[in-house]
Amino acid sequence: VQESFEIVSSSGNYAVTIGRDLLAGVVALDPNAIFLIDERLQNALPPSAVKRIVVEAAESRKSLEVMPEIILALREHGANRSSHLIAIGGGVIQDIATFAASIYMRGIRWTYMPTTLLGMADSCIGGKSSINVLGYKNLIGNFYPPEEVVIDVDFIRTLDAEQVIGGLFEAVKICYARGQRPFADYLAEGPTWPLAADVAQRLLTRSLRTKKWFIETDEFDQKERLLLNLGHTFGHALEAATDFGVSHGVAVGIGMLIAIDYARRRDRLTGKGHECAAQLEEHVTTMMNLVVASGVQWPDVDLSKVMQKFDNDKKHRSDVYRVVLPIGDGALELISEPRDDITREHLHASYAAVFAGLGIAMRAEAANALA
Amino acid sequence: VQESFEIVSSSGNYAVTIGRDLLAGVVALDPNAIFLIDERLQNALPPSAVKRIVVEAAESRKSLEVMPEIILALREHGANRSSHLIAIGGGVIQDIATFAASIYMRGIRWTYMPTTLLGMADSCIGGKSSINVLGYKNLIGNFYPPEEVVIDVDFIRTLDAEQVIGGLFEAVKICYARGQRPFADYLAEGPTWPLAADVAQRLLTRSLRTKKWFIETDEFDQKERLLLNLGHTFGHALEAATDFGVSHGVAVGIGMLIAIDYARRRDRLTGKGHECAAQLEEHVTTMMNLVVASGVQWPDVDLSKVMQKFDNDKKHRSDVYRVVLPIGDGALELISEPRDDITREHLHASYAAVFAGLGIAMRAEAANALA
Repeated sequence: VQESFEIVSSSGNYAVTIGRDLLAGVVALDPNAIFLIDERLQNALPPSAVKRIVVEAAESRKSLEVMPEIILALREHGANRSSHLIAIGGGVIQDIATFAASIYMRGIRWTYMPTTLLGMADSCIGGKSSINVLGYKNLIGNFYPPEEVVIDVDFIRTLDAEQVIGGLFEAVKICYARGQRPFADYLAEGPTWPLAADVAQRLLTRSLRTKKWFIETDEFDQKERLLLNLGHTFGHALEAATDFGVSHGVAVGIGMLIAIDYARRRDRLTGKGHECAAQLEEHVTTMMNLVVASGVQWPDVDLSKVMQKFDNDKKHRSDVYRVVLPIGDGALELISEPRDDITREHLHASYAAVFAGLGIAMRAEAANALA
Repeated sequence: VQESFEIVSSSGNYAVTIGRDLLAGVVALDPNAIFLIDERLQNALPPSAVKRIVVEAAESRKSLEVMPEIILALREHGANRSSHLIAIGGGVIQDIATFAASIYMRGIRWTYMPTTLLGMADSCIGGKSSINVLGYKNLIGNFYPPEEVVIDVDFIRTLDAEQVIGGLFEAVKICYARGQRPFADYLAEGPTWPLAADVAQRLLTRSLRTKKWFIETDEFDQKERLLLNLGHTFGHALEAATDFGVSHGVAVGIGMLIAIDYARRRDRLTGKGHECAAQLEEHVTTMMNLVVASGVQWPDVDLSKVMQKFDNDKKHRSDVYRVVLPIGDGALELISEPRDDITREHLHASYAAVFAGLGIAMRAEAANALA
């Protein structure tokens, strides 16, 4: 049985549908559409879908420099103002499709079918794109939601443990950000790996209905929606310092552990807050152990480089670091920490403790300590 | 005395101010802003405005391929989410600023000071950008209005007859599109060349307040606003066929004459409609004679190439041409003409008649006629 609900957005409402075996129906409904698809998934498309733009789902492709090629491909498929783009793939495909659809002839309609759990659980709604420019990651972007999001959970079979659990980290983040009850309801569904299709459908429904509240309350990332950055600022620094040797979802999981450790270290939690945060910590750790058991290779990490990347994050201000932490009774807050040595020492200690707990080697850090 | 009014838009309202000697005030208000300015005007900026991105206002610069440079320049000036971009220049600068401001960190605020009469009378409000890609003119674009539009009519002194009259063509087009009364009120202000600052201010106020009605009624170019394409589809073909040897404003003036000639030729006007259209025709012809008197050089025109460019316009549909014409009692309508030889013969005749009337030589056309 499929589920549907609507997202309200300033540029028009759009529908989200979650179910099994939906791809064939989307194609049958509009075989004249232009398909933008991850090259690894193109065999999933029936031959009737003839207008195809096949893209390697690589970070380097979601760049402003590559955009003229995509626009040219649309033009060569005869796209006009009433054309319909159907994007099938993960985050990179979504970013490219959001950006290209928004600018082609000042905007054409598009449909998105996420194929990663990260996309299904989180990024497929909200309408954001993030695009690289001349080596600067995500320096540009925009807001341009699709007309429809169609989530075919059968794509989950194409994913490995790390990809599935990475998506679950975004899902639990959203539910935790909304409060204790949504978090408990999420855990009660039994998120784990391997992930059965029916469980996936229920988890995704919870995650997306919860995210719906955030984006409808704060469409343009001014306040409530910023809480969804839990784990992200810490995680991005790790991704960047390892040249993306740690995947985004897993980095977010690690980032959540660091946020909890730091909040505890700075004594920001009440007794009840400790309990809530510990529940999240336990769930994330359990999932992380499944990732490790699946044979993930951690890169060696240079902790001073991680700290440097953290320091450079564009979300900070000149005088304060800006991070989302569980505070008080465990609810999330976007807080400002003085940009001084004391803060940095505690941040450093949190990173080191979490890395050690996960068995992530800190190579160059030892060298630095000796220097 | 300066005039101010507000434009209502889905992405927030913005103010338009029209007056004299306003540049210094804009700079003084925010010297930390980043200025994007036409290189020919950079001497107008006081030295206190230190963060400058100086751009050649050439058609080739408003392209997707050039955009990474602009984004990088913003980044090098330290732009962040709360930065303020102030764009000073004509249409090319406006297009670049609209696009760059909309995508930089998913959108930063910006102020626009138009410096051409085309910009002041028409394009400065509405929030549209048009950007070239790989040689395809205006294939992409978006909607991202500035936070404020500040029109300093003293910039008009930097413009020649062709530039001023080109702007007046857009102004009269807007007022005619709104109806007989706004058109009569516009003519009563005495639009001409040379254009005194006080007359300019009154004309611009009329033109922009009238355009305000169009864009607030139809922000995203669905219906009423499409009437503002009067003269444009005919004019674009001429611009394209001469490699932009005819300026945009003048091409729009010529396009209006062709629209009137074609409507008359196809017997689409009542007696009253003939009268209205003739008034517009007379005004445009008078202004065009001033352009000719100022020494404008017409390029030789290949009429078959103009027809081919007209045929390729992306606004047409596969079975019909889409053009704005004065119809019936003279009001504008977006009409669909069958895409057949009869239509093309009449269009050809209208182009030839208007070109002949303006003394525009039709070089290769003669050769084609012999072939």
